[in-house]
Amino acid sequence: MYLTQPLHNAVRHRAAHPLTVYGDRVRSVADGAHRVGRLAAGLQALGVGPGDRVALLGANSDRYHEALLAVAWAGGIVVPLNSRWAAEEVGYAMADCAPAVVITDERLLPVVDAVRDRAGVGAVVVMSDGRPPVGAVSFEDLIAVHAPMSDVRRGGDDVLGIFYTGGTTGRSKGVMLSHDNVFTSAWGSLATGHFTTPGGRLLHAAPMFHLADFAIWIAGLLTGGTHVIVDGFTPGGVLAAIERHAVTDVLLVPTMIQALADFPDAGRYDTSSLVRLIYGGSPMPATTLAAARTMFPGAGLVQAYGMTELSPVATLLGPAEHDVPRLAASAGRAAPHAEVRIVDPAGDEVAAGSVGEVVVRGDHVMAGYWQRPEETAAALRGGWMYTGDAGYLDEDGFLFVVDRIKDMIITGGENVHSAEVENVLSQHPAVAACAVIGLPDAQWGERVHALVVPAGDAGVSAEDLRAFCRGRLAGFKIPRSVEVVASLPVSPAGKVVKRQLRQERAR
Amino acid sequence: MYLTQPLHNAVRHRAAHPLTVYGDRVRSVADGAHRVGRLAAGLQALGVGPGDRVALLGANSDRYHEALLAVAWAGGIVVPLNSRWAAEEVGYAMADCAPAVVITDERLLPVVDAVRDRAGVGAVVVMSDGRPPVGAVSFEDLIAVHAPMSDVRRGGDDVLGIFYTGGTTGRSKGVMLSHDNVFTSAWGSLATGHFTTPGGRLLHAAPMFHLADFAIWIAGLLTGGTHVIVDGFTPGGVLAAIERHAVTDVLLVPTMIQALADFPDAGRYDTSSLVRLIYGGSPMPATTLAAARTMFPGAGLVQAYGMTELSPVATLLGPAEHDVPRLAASAGRAAPHAEVRIVDPAGDEVAAGSVGEVVVRGDHVMAGYWQRPEETAAALRGGWMYTGDAGYLDEDGFLFVVDRIKDMIITGGENVHSAEVENVLSQHPAVAACAVIGLPDAQWGERVHALVVPAGDAGVSAEDLRAFCRGRLAGFKIPRSVEVVASLPVSPAGKVVKRQLRQERAR
Repeated sequence: MYLTQPLHNAVRHRAAHPLTVYGDRVRSVADGAHRVGRLAAGLQALGVGPGDRVALLGANSDRYHEALLAVAWAGGIVVPLNSRWAAEEVGYAMADCAPAVVITDERLLPVVDAVRDRAGVGAVVVMSDGRPPVGAVSFEDLIAVHAPMSDVRRGGDDVLGIFYTGGTTGRSKGVMLSHDNVFTSAWGSLATGHFTTPGGRLLHAAPMFHLADFAIWIAGLLTGGTHVIVDGFTPGGVLAAIERHAVTDVLLVPTMIQALADFPDAGRYDTSSLVRLIYGGSPMPATTLAAARTMFPGAGLVQAYGMTELSPVATLLGPAEHDVPRLAASAGRAAPHAEVRIVDPAGDEVAAGSVGEVVVRGDHVMAGYWQRPEETAAALRGGWMYTGDAGYLDEDGFLFVVDRIKDMIITGGENVHSAEVENVLSQHPAVAACAVIGLPDAQWGERVHALVVPAGDAGVSAEDLRAFCRGRLAGFKIPRSVEVVASLPVSPAGKVVKRQLRQERAR
Repeated sequence: MYLTQPLHNAVRHRAAHPLTVYGDRVRSVADGAHRVGRLAAGLQALGVGPGDRVALLGANSDRYHEALLAVAWAGGIVVPLNSRWAAEEVGYAMADCAPAVVITDERLLPVVDAVRDRAGVGAVVVMSDGRPPVGAVSFEDLIAVHAPMSDVRRGGDDVLGIFYTGGTTGRSKGVMLSHDNVFTSAWGSLATGHFTTPGGRLLHAAPMFHLADFAIWIAGLLTGGTHVIVDGFTPGGVLAAIERHAVTDVLLVPTMIQALADFPDAGRYDTSSLVRLIYGGSPMPATTLAAARTMFPGAGLVQAYGMTELSPVATLLGPAEHDVPRLAASAGRAAPHAEVRIVDPAGDEVAAGSVGEVVVRGDHVMAGYWQRPEETAAALRGGWMYTGDAGYLDEDGFLFVVDRIKDMIITGGENVHSAEVENVLSQHPAVAACAVIGLPDAQWGERVHALVVPAGDAGVSAEDLRAFCRGRLAGFKIPRSVEVVASLPVSPAGKVVKRQLRQERAR
């Protein structure tokens, strides 16, 4: 397969069908394909040849969709960067992948300008309307002045894109995914019947630079869907888009779903068109799950678990499985394209019910980290991707992720999953946010240490929290020390940076 | 992907779930996988190593299913042979692929015995119950005496099987299909939502040696299905199996569906479990389509068009498209994994509506013909499989197959599709069967010649038939000569051997 193949088929099957909807702008398949062929020619004219990188830094839009396709059409490797990153982080990734061209929007142009010399960027293309500033090229000009080029048709094992991950684990790494990697994840996910609706209308409200949304974008291309694109997540914007465009499928993360549930005007929108709500990132808390069901009674809930290195889907939890409370807390079962095992530190498989590292095998496992053979060799062992997640499989193959391996605490010879302790602490009414880490301890090896952000001004005492944990957690899991903090350090992906918390406290 | 991967996943997900049902014998996933691992070890002990061929000649059964999996598990290449072939044809294919082992059943053992020396077969395994004859090994003994071996896990571009085709076009050719070839066809077919039902019960009544049934077998493995297997097609047997096992999905060819419709006791069976009736080989005649709808009102009709060389699916026609009479006569549209074009003899694409050769591209296109580089080069040009079918695409990409390229007749500069003339002739009540070919003609280049098998004893005159054709066909399409014959030569696949008809009349 190759990324633009579904576009060629769509031109033959439904040329007049809407391909993208962005605000009031609707583009047909034929128009979209024509623009992609012209944009590819423009990129080629700017020096993009087979295997050259093209970085993409911007908010969601129909042009973002076209840029993804055009880079592949021209034979390049697309590098979708996180639009929430600071200039320093963007600069690091750009210097790492050395893009021939950067495609950005007006809002993010200053970030690109600050780093373009350091990264040796050849040209900057601006997706926004209107004349581009000096030193930049207009996206629409590229399309206007170039005739469509022939599709280069790189595909199969050729690298389709480099997706930067991390931030919580040191320097960001570029995950190389081939065309076949991402199609494998899409095919297997679709085969379950729990992914995008054939001929449906898919809402892209989650960032398109992230592989979760990219995955349903690919699935939508394969199933002849229309891509409804909003430039970012707001509760009102998402609900209005669902109503206005009769959206059938949407991918969100649990925090977005909770934000919809908390939105005062949610009941004013007709969202009955929604067939499927796909979410990823984590299992849905029971209260959020209940809110999602109330809000979208006709939509099937689908959880996808995976990571960028897995293109991204490893396991899926289908709608019916959400009806079983025990299973709703799981990440589901291996999708048909994936094999999932739990291994001990020696790499040997452990029995059902035993916690170990989640490892995954299949044609969706990344080609490797860009220019990092050592990190690639550490992550890929014997064909298995070592996810860094700690979890267990039950007797029926349902995966329960309990923690990140490196966030597990070993105290007095017992394993403590920080996530389990955090789940209990966060139920205390005086706790707004919390993080649990292991700190060096002469007696216990490590001790369980909790950092707590109090809710409101009432304050919270260590003894109150420890008392709250008793009866809810085994004694060795109860924090031996509690620290009240004003806030917790959070990565651009919204995760608490525990590495930083540990380092600060180890000094 | 590799063929046995879905089996490994099934063991983790649903070990106690029924995997195969054959008569009264039900085997669970765990039992089936265990037997496959043992059988693979038995094949290895008989000398089957990576890349060695194992021929499979027998009726449908649960053991046939196990043999397909075990050959892959042991690293071999499976060669499913047509169980209706004469010894001469079996001998030709076996000598061509030189199998290390042949797996057969008692009924077909004499055919194998007649050719085993010529083909240099190392060992013969008999799938039937009871003691095997001298010189043969018992399938069940192999399973009983060997411990399961580790799965060799050949996959990806490795050849999974060799499938012999042809018979109407000279010597039979071995089509090499890789693991990725057959999975690509399955993934793309499943992505449309028109292939096997997840967790469904699939009836194998069509021969499992044929790639049509093999395709839904693979899809059933991927979607966690139970394989209900009958040893061959009979109308009563199929209807009883659907009722007894609450079958959800079945693949049949139109002649089988017509036989079900003509079966006097059809109304006595409860077939309401059927979700989907997949058919291939040709579009369904309107009367058969109507009969199928009446018989299975709750089942969606799905037509698959393709060929062995395409692993096998190229296009699909979904249930809703069957409601449009014009489209019901088509073969549907390219499945998401395939690209379909119509080209002229120079290989250039022709416009929508123009007849030319159907060519198909994608990861499902065969690796090549076994040991026939010249025939491979003739069939695969620039990545496209030249199907030998004549057809056209409409403006929406629906494929209409009108004839085999080599059966088209050029008379007085006009193209005549033999199938079109045959369709008209076969509507005449005095015609039981017919074939239309082109014969050399001094005036017209070729002339349209009809061979007709009369229905009953009433006889049929050339002038009657020609009169019947007037108003139904353009003048140049009406047969200039009509020949009444007692029967038509038919290939093992049930197709009229027009090459033979032409050769006999060219003498």
